[in-house]
Amino acid sequence: MEPRVSLITIGVADLERSRTFYEALGWRSTSKPEDGVVFFQSGSMVFALWGREELRKDSEVEDSGGWGGVTLACNLRSPAEVDAFLERAAQAGARIARTGAETFWGGYNGIFIDPDGHPWEIAHNPFWTVTDEGDVVLP
Amino acid sequence: MEPRVSLITIGVADLERSRTFYEALGWRSTSKPEDGVVFFQSGSMVFALWGREELRKDSEVEDSGGWGGVTLACNLRSPAEVDAFLERAAQAGARIARTGAETFWGGYNGIFIDPDGHPWEIAHNPFWTVTDEGDVVLP
Repeated sequence: MEPRVSLITIGVADLERSRTFYEALGWRSTSKPEDGVVFFQSGSMVFALWGREELRKDSEVEDSGGWGGVTLACNLRSPAEVDAFLERAAQAGARIARTGAETFWGGYNGIFIDPDGHPWEIAHNPFWTVTDEGDVVLP
Repeated sequence: MEPRVSLITIGVADLERSRTFYEALGWRSTSKPEDGVVFFQSGSMVFALWGREELRKDSEVEDSGGWGGVTLACNLRSPAEVDAFLERAAQAGARIARTGAETFWGGYNGIFIDPDGHPWEIAHNPFWTVTDEGDVVLP
C-alpha cells in the first residue's frame, strides 16, 4: 500500500464561524458542536477544522502566525464552474485574492482566502480527469 | 457534487531533496525533473511538491516563514503500522517530533517533521475505517 494523505486539518480561530463558512460552500459534516472539531468526508480522505493552537500543540511545531507553505485546491470541470465556486465563496464571506483567469500552465484558476487566512486555489486543469464523484486522477 | 480537497501542495526549498524524501516513504510519481513540480496520486486526490516561493506567489499570500496552521496526516491500520512508518520516516531523514503513543482521543499517533519543517501526523484511529486501498471513511 502506498502512503496517503488521509487527513488535512486546518487551524481556525472560531470553529463555528469556520464550519458555517465551509458549509456555505457545500461541505457537510456530522460532527457535533461538543466534539470541538469538525470532520468533512472528502473523497478518500478527511478534511478537518480544529482550533489553531490545539493543532499547533498537537503537531509539535511553533506557529509563525500566517501562511506556512501549504495550499489546498479544489479542482472542477470547467472555467465556468471555477467562476461559480469563487462567487459562492465570496457570498460566504471569503476574500477573492485572484479572480478566475487563465494560468501559465494552460489551465484556469482563481484564489480565495478563508476567514482564517488560508488560501484555496479553485482550478480547472484540462490535463487532469475529474470524475463524476469529484475524484481527481493524474494522467 | 460536494466540494473536495482535490490537491494539496506543500512548498519546499529543494524539489529533488523533497522528492527523494517522499519516495523513500513509498510515494511514486511520474513527474519529470523539468516539470519543476512533483505530483503524487493520493487516493481520490493529488499531493504535490513545489518551490515554496512559487507556491506563495501563486497562492496570493505572504509567507510567515514557518508553520501556518495546516497539518497533514496519514492514517494506518494499527499502532504497529504507525511505529513502522515513523521508523521509515526517521531512516529517510525526518525528525521524529513525537514517537508513537496513545492519544487523549483513544487513538495512537506520532509526529515527524519533513525536511522543510512540515509536520505529519501518523495515526491509527480505531473509530475510522481504513480500507485495503488506504481510503479513510468517517463513521
